[in-house]
Amino acid sequence: MTLATPAGYRALDDASLRDFLAGLPDLRDRLGGRPPDWSIIEVGDGNLNLVFLIDGPEGSLCVKQSLPYVRAAGESWPLPLDRAFFEQSYYRAVAPYSEGLTPRFFYYQPELYAIVMERLSPHIILRRGLIEGRRYPGAAAAVAEFAARSTFATSDFGATLEEKAELMSTFARNTSLIRITAEVVFTDPLANSPRNRWTSPALDGLAAEFRADSALKVTVAEWGRRFLTEAQALIHGDLHTGSVMVTETDTRVMDPEFAFVGPIGFDIGAFIANLVMNAIAQAGHATPGDDRKAEADWVLSQVPVFWDTFSSRFLALWDEKARGDAYPPAMFSNPGDAAVLAGARKAFVDRLFADAIGYAGVKTIRRILGFAHNADFELIADPARRAPLEAKSARLARTFLLEPHSFRTPDDIVAAVKAL
Amino acid sequence: MTLATPAGYRALDDASLRDFLAGLPDLRDRLGGRPPDWSIIEVGDGNLNLVFLIDGPEGSLCVKQSLPYVRAAGESWPLPLDRAFFEQSYYRAVAPYSEGLTPRFFYYQPELYAIVMERLSPHIILRRGLIEGRRYPGAAAAVAEFAARSTFATSDFGATLEEKAELMSTFARNTSLIRITAEVVFTDPLANSPRNRWTSPALDGLAAEFRADSALKVTVAEWGRRFLTEAQALIHGDLHTGSVMVTETDTRVMDPEFAFVGPIGFDIGAFIANLVMNAIAQAGHATPGDDRKAEADWVLSQVPVFWDTFSSRFLALWDEKARGDAYPPAMFSNPGDAAVLAGARKAFVDRLFADAIGYAGVKTIRRILGFAHNADFELIADPARRAPLEAKSARLARTFLLEPHSFRTPDDIVAAVKAL
Repeated sequence: MTLATPAGYRALDDASLRDFLAGLPDLRDRLGGRPPDWSIIEVGDGNLNLVFLIDGPEGSLCVKQSLPYVRAAGESWPLPLDRAFFEQSYYRAVAPYSEGLTPRFFYYQPELYAIVMERLSPHIILRRGLIEGRRYPGAAAAVAEFAARSTFATSDFGATLEEKAELMSTFARNTSLIRITAEVVFTDPLANSPRNRWTSPALDGLAAEFRADSALKVTVAEWGRRFLTEAQALIHGDLHTGSVMVTETDTRVMDPEFAFVGPIGFDIGAFIANLVMNAIAQAGHATPGDDRKAEADWVLSQVPVFWDTFSSRFLALWDEKARGDAYPPAMFSNPGDAAVLAGARKAFVDRLFADAIGYAGVKTIRRILGFAHNADFELIADPARRAPLEAKSARLARTFLLEPHSFRTPDDIVAAVKAL
Repeated sequence: MTLATPAGYRALDDASLRDFLAGLPDLRDRLGGRPPDWSIIEVGDGNLNLVFLIDGPEGSLCVKQSLPYVRAAGESWPLPLDRAFFEQSYYRAVAPYSEGLTPRFFYYQPELYAIVMERLSPHIILRRGLIEGRRYPGAAAAVAEFAARSTFATSDFGATLEEKAELMSTFARNTSLIRITAEVVFTDPLANSPRNRWTSPALDGLAAEFRADSALKVTVAEWGRRFLTEAQALIHGDLHTGSVMVTETDTRVMDPEFAFVGPIGFDIGAFIANLVMNAIAQAGHATPGDDRKAEADWVLSQVPVFWDTFSSRFLALWDEKARGDAYPPAMFSNPGDAAVLAGARKAFVDRLFADAIGYAGVKTIRRILGFAHNADFELIADPARRAPLEAKSARLARTFLLEPHSFRTPDDIVAAVKAL
């Protein structure tokens, strides 16, 4: 490792990880046996970190450690280690509202920037499962439940301004990852960035057309401005189907290192966009025995499930647990206020849907023309099959951005995808 | 003093202030002579602080010190001392952009929560001057220039996201004063708060009517939500005519202790609301020789001067100094982008005007039905003269809030006031 790192930091390997865990009695007991009995494998397949799975005679753990560079890009793209601090800060902040919906958090070692948490097994990444044609009946609703609970509780409806200020003050410093989002999601994909790539030459024309579309670019830029300024709640910041692990009956949201106090619709739009991209990509995974049409329909059907669950749970929490400084209950003590207040709350949640449509458009385009692509499309090996599906997604995303009023409900999204 | 205060804190008096300044060579030199030669008077007529003016043989100083309670309410309303920290943080943050538009900042003593700054002389409070029927030809434009420069430079257009994050992280902790605004500006005036007062019995009916107006209350609450969430730029937080000192030729913005990263329109709306209230109040200060109609017209004419200066300067700075992460220049390098980008910028500034109208409505109602009133009205001794003018202001404010689309330009405000 040639990059300078703080004193006390070293990238963990099998031996040093074993020593580290052996020195923590609670975690050692959880694994059981003696350190030589533990099996350790490194499985990080994401972009940014080392991820170890540790199995002992009595239990298992997962350790996630920051690397000082973007793993997917190599040491040429350095990245501060402190994202692990923000990830564990997020897990701690949302823990009271997310029991059973995230991996359990056990320990954070600040000098190693290492998080020790529950090893999820036999969970797999939701995105992978969907690509393989499986269904997870409770997943979309669980992610929606998680998003509703965690964002409501940290919003100005569910938190006092002092509580929210504490979150803002902490997470505003997560600038390394906020900058990555600002650049690779909002700026680069429609600019001339060397980090961009797309299925070439098939999509060269589409990429050029999008980059020449000034109206599209100012719309994306306006969503970028709102991403940077709308401090609505503590959000996950990267809530796509690759940040969710599932079994048939269990769903956990993970990888919140991009967390900050931002627009709720950014998370909602990310999840919707990734469901829609998966549904569109299904045709590319068709086999002689399975055209994947039923799977595509099922995935798409999860968009209304997700939104309806999120919106109804958010409104229910607002009804039950309003204690923040926005729309303070003290202002609405007259009997006649209730209906008007309910209408205002509904209008707020409707605006979150409109926000989600905008962010879904942005998040889709970046997956097709930007730096980080989706396995949903990438695993379609033949570019001649992949490119038309990517183009469909990109054009739908442009419609999200330039004709947002055509999308007032999740059913409008479903209908638009089916009409492609 | 019975409230607990940190070690090292004491409320300054003549003797201890003299000792304090005597121990600071630069400031001692600025005053000249020996400490016994200095004259010290305490002039704090605001709500929250001690303010001392110190004159020496060679120069003068002003010292502003936090008290541990709201001065206007007494020790029954405790208030943390740290607002002085935020006030000096604001002066430092905007210093590069506000030369000659604020008092010069010299020194901050953190244990005493005491700020030493330029003594402005022969300046008076703009509000007082306007009440006395004077005119300050450059004042509105200077305040607009200050607001444009300081908010642009600290917005996502003029600052990098790292620079803005630093401001957010610091000023998010200014919760004591943010809470005061949230409560006394947005919540209390339309709720049943013991802190409210109004010209009674004349305005009892109006107060009851407003408190029963559910639509008005949710509109105010929505502006309150936006106040708490729209982190657009470092704002002054209390930019009314009482926070500005003037001579015929010089204008200085002061008292930024309510500063935080919030909606730009909150400052703009505060200043507009206070000009409008002063214009409406002029009739109450009429004398046999001066009906104050000309003064009212002049004050009102400063609304377009203020907005036009602010908006044109903000747009000019955006054109000259765009270096932030919102609407990043890298996205708009095609020749065809320029016109569309200019339109988007204009649209953003137009939305700031709409925001200002909303906040102006909120800030007006609170001055008539809430805790802190305006000298513009308070100095009209006869309630029979005062109440109708306050009622006019409050009803106009309600129109700002419920019929915002009637106010698309500052001339619409001028016309509405003249039609009252």
